[in-house]
Amino acid sequence: MLTSYNRIAGQSVERLAALSDGVFAIAMTLLVLDLRVPASEAIHNESDLWHALVALSPRLVMFGMSVLTLGIFWVGQQTQLNHLRRSDRSLSWIHIAFLGIVSLVPFSTGLLAEYTHYRVALLVYWANIVLLGATLYWSWVCALGTRLVKEDLSADVSRAMKRRIVVAQSLYACAAALCIIDTRLSIACIVLLQLNYALAPRLTRNF
Amino acid sequence: MLTSYNRIAGQSVERLAALSDGVFAIAMTLLVLDLRVPASEAIHNESDLWHALVALSPRLVMFGMSVLTLGIFWVGQQTQLNHLRRSDRSLSWIHIAFLGIVSLVPFSTGLLAEYTHYRVALLVYWANIVLLGATLYWSWVCALGTRLVKEDLSADVSRAMKRRIVVAQSLYACAAALCIIDTRLSIACIVLLQLNYALAPRLTRNF
Amino acid sequence: MLTSYNRIAGQSVERLAALSDGVFAIAMTLLVLDLRVPASEAIHNESDLWHALVALSPRLVMFGMSVLTLGIFWVGQQTQLNHLRRSDRSLSWIHIAFLGIVSLVPFSTGLLAEYTHYRVALLVYWANIVLLGATLYWSWVCALGTRLVKEDLSADVSRAMKRRIVVAQSLYACAAALCIIDTRLSIACIVLLQLNYALAPRLTRNF
Amino acid sequence: MLTSYNRIAGQSVERLAALSDGVFAIAMTLLVLDLRVPASEAIHNESDLWHALVALSPRLVMFGMSVLTLGIFWVGQQTQLNHLRRSDRSLSWIHIAFLGIVSLVPFSTGLLAEYTHYRVALLVYWANIVLLGATLYWSWVCALGTRLVKEDLSADVSRAMKRRIVVAQSLYACAAALCIIDTRLSIACIVLLQLNYALAPRLTRNF
Repeated sequence: MLTSYNRIAGQSVERLAALSDGVFAIAMTLLVLDLRVPASEAIHNESDLWHALVALSPRLVMFGMSVLTLGIFWVGQQTQLNHLRRSDRSLSWIHIAFLGIVSLVPFSTGLLAEYTHYRVALLVYWANIVLLGATLYWSWVCALGTRLVKEDLSADVSRAMKRRIVVAQSLYACAAALCIIDTRLSIACIVLLQLNYALAPRLTRNF
Repeated sequence: MLTSYNRIAGQSVERLAALSDGVFAIAMTLLVLDLRVPASEAIHNESDLWHALVALSPRLVMFGMSVLTLGIFWVGQQTQLNHLRRSDRSLSWIHIAFLGIVSLVPFSTGLLAEYTHYRVALLVYWANIVLLGATLYWSWVCALGTRLVKEDLSADVSRAMKRRIVVAQSLYACAAALCIIDTRLSIACIVLLQLNYALAPRLTRNF
Repeated sequence: MLTSYNRIAGQSVERLAALSDGVFAIAMTLLVLDLRVPASEAIHNESDLWHALVALSPRLVMFGMSVLTLGIFWVGQQTQLNHLRRSDRSLSWIHIAFLGIVSLVPFSTGLLAEYTHYRVALLVYWANIVLLGATLYWSWVCALGTRLVKEDLSADVSRAMKRRIVVAQSLYACAAALCIIDTRLSIACIVLLQLNYALAPRLTRNF
Repeated sequence: MLTSYNRIAGQSVERLAALSDGVFAIAMTLLVLDLRVPASEAIHNESDLWHALVALSPRLVMFGMSVLTLGIFWVGQQTQLNHLRRSDRSLSWIHIAFLGIVSLVPFSTGLLAEYTHYRVALLVYWANIVLLGATLYWSWVCALGTRLVKEDLSADVSRAMKRRIVVAQSLYACAAALCIIDTRLSIACIVLLQLNYALAPRLTRNF
């Protein structure tokens, strides 16, 4: 009997997690590379330095948005991987695609921050979020289909995973659709949604 | 009795895997560094921004190709390491060489994407793939020779590992040879081969 | 019964640790990127090269300061995570915020090294240290509140964790306050404090 | 009884290893960032591209040298950490210093490759190797002194660790001293020594 390479390849969830942590760590720090210490030629007193730093603050906000978006999907992917017994080659490839899309987040965040009133920038950013959600959803469906999930996984948990992605993506789509009125309204809604996902667990811990 | 350093050095498969994940994560994100948000001076309306983004798309394709090539060899190396009991100093060095070659992938991919109809670019890219395949094959032969593989490894699995590399490299060589006719024919064949390796497990899952 | 996503998300301390190690590793090496080999046009003899290298030494000092600050907080975060049974979604988010602040350390260190007699630079650097301490303290309080710490954790250890942060931050605040007299006095005190935290365990090992 | 922070801080060998793998992975790929695809304006035929690539080859050699040096010390550090039961705060700090020095390797390698006949460049490179060896030796002495090593560690293994560093550093010192005659003689000896450390285990496997 011939052993197929497919049956032995890509089985380690730990390696997938480690690769993911590397890619997320790089993606999170990519926008920091744009924060440069102001050149000393233009700085003559405290006030000059203060204004030079204030001028850098939009880049800091971009960086914060990028960390927020990446944090949401890092938690989401981790939650999935924690429920897997093992991976297989198909699942590894879905996550490699996911990581490729993850590393585009600093770009699309930067684009949106630079072009706040351009619908194209908003739609690129939204497309990035949609692709992230879609690959995570696809990965979960595949893991369920090929029984890679841990045996003690309850149907409840499985539904909570899917529901989470569907609800979040629906809200993102509504927020993006508001760009018909004004792109900044869309951005405000998306940022509020993201803050909600980052802060909500603390607010609702006792319920 | 003198204990040789060789007998105690480089035994951890986990550390080798962690170093590899770091190098792969960096290699995968290296080409993203070239994606820069278009400068706002040249952008006056939605249409300008759209065209500036379209002009970036070749870099996005390059990035995709790079992720594809790296994904194939990441899965390949992981599959090997999963079957090792432990490493030794020789094997660690083969994998360090492998990782050095891995970090050249973004360069050779970028070269090929820039110079699609130059045979030199195609041969550099192909040489990179050949070196990756050769070090992985060498690593497996060494691991078998020095009994570093897990004891329950069946001869079937071992053959599947080798066969996979030999078949893939033969196909790559054929594709590369087509550059005598036209380099773009070679590129098309190589990309199809790579997509096949990434997508095939999903298509043939039930067979 | 509906399973809330909050109850299953972000539970892995290992993944949190791995993401942290990635971010710390990148932050530690970020300032090395500024060390460039002197251009060969300007170098005609040994003495020229020597002076070009001496001219690079402030960047080397900046790099050393950055490694020192990051090392202190890496050890601090590790010590916390070692005492956790598991994480949850809230705690993961506090640490994601912590990591975002970590990746700003090379910037604020570089700013201070460039503008040693500007109070603004000193206060930015101090603000960065305060934020790092505050998120770590917050994380520990949350972990205690939601019983994520290991069951064998003694009250002594828990107090030692908090006391460490409070004492260190008080000393940093005093050092920063000295900038009313002279910023360089502040810097000297902060560097001495940091060296103390890095070297002290060796000096006091036997007590 | 007051629990000292020193007694609970920095105990995880795994975290130390993970941070190290991150720093080594970044250091190994740092010189790849200098390999840029030749600009298409200057390339008009296969021969132009070939010559542009040949012009890049010194950077490729630099990259190879850097991977070699880093590989040697990665294997060396790994071998040490594999024999530790746990770490403590002092040992963590020695390794943080070691990692800081590791991330300077691409710089000193690049400097030597650019200025092959300058003694200053050679001595900087040698100083980097001496510092790496010294911190590793110091780390091992500390680990033995504070009984952090595994209990089944034989005196043989411990001596092999120390002997290895002392012998290697003595040979490096001799090679560096040859710069009195000619720096290129020194470089040749150092490269041969490094190749010996990378290849020797394979050549002498059966003895």
